[in-house]
Amino acid sequence: MKVSDRISGVFASPIRKLSPYAEAAKAAGKKVYHLNIGQPDIQTPPAFLEAIRAFDDKVIAYGDSRGDTQLLKAVRSYYRDWGMDFDIDEITITSGGSEALLIAMMAVCDPGDEILVFEPFYANYLSFADVLNVNMKAVTTKAENGYALSGEAAVETVITPRTKAMIVTNPGNPTGRVLTSDEMDLIARVARRHDLALIVDEVYREFVYGVPFRSFGVVPGLEDNLILVDSLSKRYSACGARIGALLSHNAEFNAQIMKYCQARLCCPELEQIGAAALYSTPKSYLADVNAEYRRRRDTLEKALSRLPNVTFSSPQGAFYTMIKLPVDSAEKFAIWMLEQFDSHGETVMIAPGDGFYLTPGLGKDEARLAYVLNCADLERAIAIIGEGLKTYPGTKIPA
Amino acid sequence: MKVSDRISGVFASPIRKLSPYAEAAKAAGKKVYHLNIGQPDIQTPPAFLEAIRAFDDKVIAYGDSRGDTQLLKAVRSYYRDWGMDFDIDEITITSGGSEALLIAMMAVCDPGDEILVFEPFYANYLSFADVLNVNMKAVTTKAENGYALSGEAAVETVITPRTKAMIVTNPGNPTGRVLTSDEMDLIARVARRHDLALIVDEVYREFVYGVPFRSFGVVPGLEDNLILVDSLSKRYSACGARIGALLSHNAEFNAQIMKYCQARLCCPELEQIGAAALYSTPKSYLADVNAEYRRRRDTLEKALSRLPNVTFSSPQGAFYTMIKLPVDSAEKFAIWMLEQFDSHGETVMIAPGDGFYLTPGLGKDEARLAYVLNCADLERAIAIIGEGLKTYPGTKIPA
Repeated sequence: MKVSDRISGVFASPIRKLSPYAEAAKAAGKKVYHLNIGQPDIQTPPAFLEAIRAFDDKVIAYGDSRGDTQLLKAVRSYYRDWGMDFDIDEITITSGGSEALLIAMMAVCDPGDEILVFEPFYANYLSFADVLNVNMKAVTTKAENGYALSGEAAVETVITPRTKAMIVTNPGNPTGRVLTSDEMDLIARVARRHDLALIVDEVYREFVYGVPFRSFGVVPGLEDNLILVDSLSKRYSACGARIGALLSHNAEFNAQIMKYCQARLCCPELEQIGAAALYSTPKSYLADVNAEYRRRRDTLEKALSRLPNVTFSSPQGAFYTMIKLPVDSAEKFAIWMLEQFDSHGETVMIAPGDGFYLTPGLGKDEARLAYVLNCADLERAIAIIGEGLKTYPGTKIPA
Repeated sequence: MKVSDRISGVFASPIRKLSPYAEAAKAAGKKVYHLNIGQPDIQTPPAFLEAIRAFDDKVIAYGDSRGDTQLLKAVRSYYRDWGMDFDIDEITITSGGSEALLIAMMAVCDPGDEILVFEPFYANYLSFADVLNVNMKAVTTKAENGYALSGEAAVETVITPRTKAMIVTNPGNPTGRVLTSDEMDLIARVARRHDLALIVDEVYREFVYGVPFRSFGVVPGLEDNLILVDSLSKRYSACGARIGALLSHNAEFNAQIMKYCQARLCCPELEQIGAAALYSTPKSYLADVNAEYRRRRDTLEKALSRLPNVTFSSPQGAFYTMIKLPVDSAEKFAIWMLEQFDSHGETVMIAPGDGFYLTPGLGKDEARLAYVLNCADLERAIAIIGEGLKTYPGTKIPA
């Protein structure tokens, strides 16, 4: 049998595709600091496991395809606290933000349709588009401009009759950029003018440091266009729970996706029970976590600024930054760090940058770092990168 | 914004689409016996919750995209007991059999490609094909022939250059039919001759009553073609856990799907821990459950044979049967039973049969019954259907 062109064409995630090298490094006895993946070391609030431990139904039964009522109510209440009013039937629980993205894309794009995205962008969007035969078209933002949008005309140039949606990540992944209110208004205008779905991934909403954050959910006039992608993976450091959600005021969208949701039956029951309990976590938890990431961001910046010929832009949110390395290829460097290098038995895994760009050639000497480790580990990891750069054969020291 | 043609065209599951009527009936105080959905009332083995309760990691972290090692090993061992030898890297854990089906289809079909299926078939296959823009083509099997295959020529007639796969459900859902060894050989020959993927859904493997069962996994010569879809939803009555798997000896298939699996990150961690523990359940559990379903099958048949003008074929496996009702429309009857009818405050929900057929016009007076209730409830539910048929305005009594 032959595999499909669609699966052959699926983009391999830069976040995980080097995992076999990391496994080999660990098998060889090396300690690997993972800066490649947004897996926080922050403790999941105990309410998650407590609620699950208290569950004692005799049968682990199918749940509602929309999601468990208690979780739906918790999500609604969380959004109300953010000034957004979604009814229960405007919320759909999904298996992580990943399934939310897949469902949103399938619901607004036919094969050959296009989704506009701002590069660099969360690479896995591309994999979901690939399996749905949807094409992504990129508007480039640049490190030297702090990843700012370069104006409405630049965005509209990319739009064709096949463009059906825009995906916006705010705060940005992999850039850590937080959109300005003006940029959000620009995006909203373009979505309305071209009647596009506006798929907004705000899963890092709680992680913004010292700049104002405004949700697309409170931008007026977007009721018809807006599809919010949610996940509690990062919010409550519960990545392995795989609980996300889709929120939209568009009744047609909500009705149509329910057919697919019914076909896939339901989301995991126990994780939904834990997830609902997470929303009872005191607000101080999120404030504490925010403060901790802010410290890490500051630690990261300080550590990075010690590395010669490495540049980076200061992230304002999420827990990622893109850095520019003085190397021939960030991917080769990443593999070399895992295969060939160690500093006292320790090394670092990074996510090569080109996987976050659509435009060929961009990002080859960049990498995404996730500052998900505690400050001491983070300093150590960045120092190891610095040591690696000194011995890596492909390091280019500018004249 | 507009929704996509793909989502508008998604087939609404006959198993769940009438759920709002059932909710309304319950809200009005009626008790509803659910024969529409394969949700067993059998207790989930306690090992599931015990293992999860013992979990006390501080962080609910992402797992491996292929699945947790302990669960992979448990699945491998389960298959070895059935005489099938799959390496760990030939197994991929999925979010239920549903995700396994979606991934299998995307991996072997491009938009416009075709999958051959034997109707009546598990309706949700069609919804997954729809979102992937894959067309299903049906070979009809008939109640009056006990849903037997009518020969190799009839199968090959449906094959076109766009046919890339066959889906086979054994034991059958909705028919309860168990394929004969000759039929399996026929299917295997056709798959090899036309180089088709053979997607085999054997999730009811443990539920076969008094006839021999042979897995496609032991049919020689299928190493290149076979994709096994697995789920422990029914095996261990853990539908809400949403843990399934894909198994294949085709290395290219396994490698290609991993890119998609990495994009969706991982399956829920706690449910995987519980799932791994389920496989330590003593074999006597499965034997006991098998005996219980056999009793229910016999009870159902006896109860159905008391209803005048209702015909059915005797199921040999799974826990479904298709019945033919003396009504104008099984869907109208199903809705009427929920909206208009009750017997001492009780009614029954059934799944209309036409949703299990592709060929227009077939199944309009049929329904799928799931015999997932205990014998007393089952007898009562069938009696209620009988009472309903006596008063339903669309009942047609043959002259």
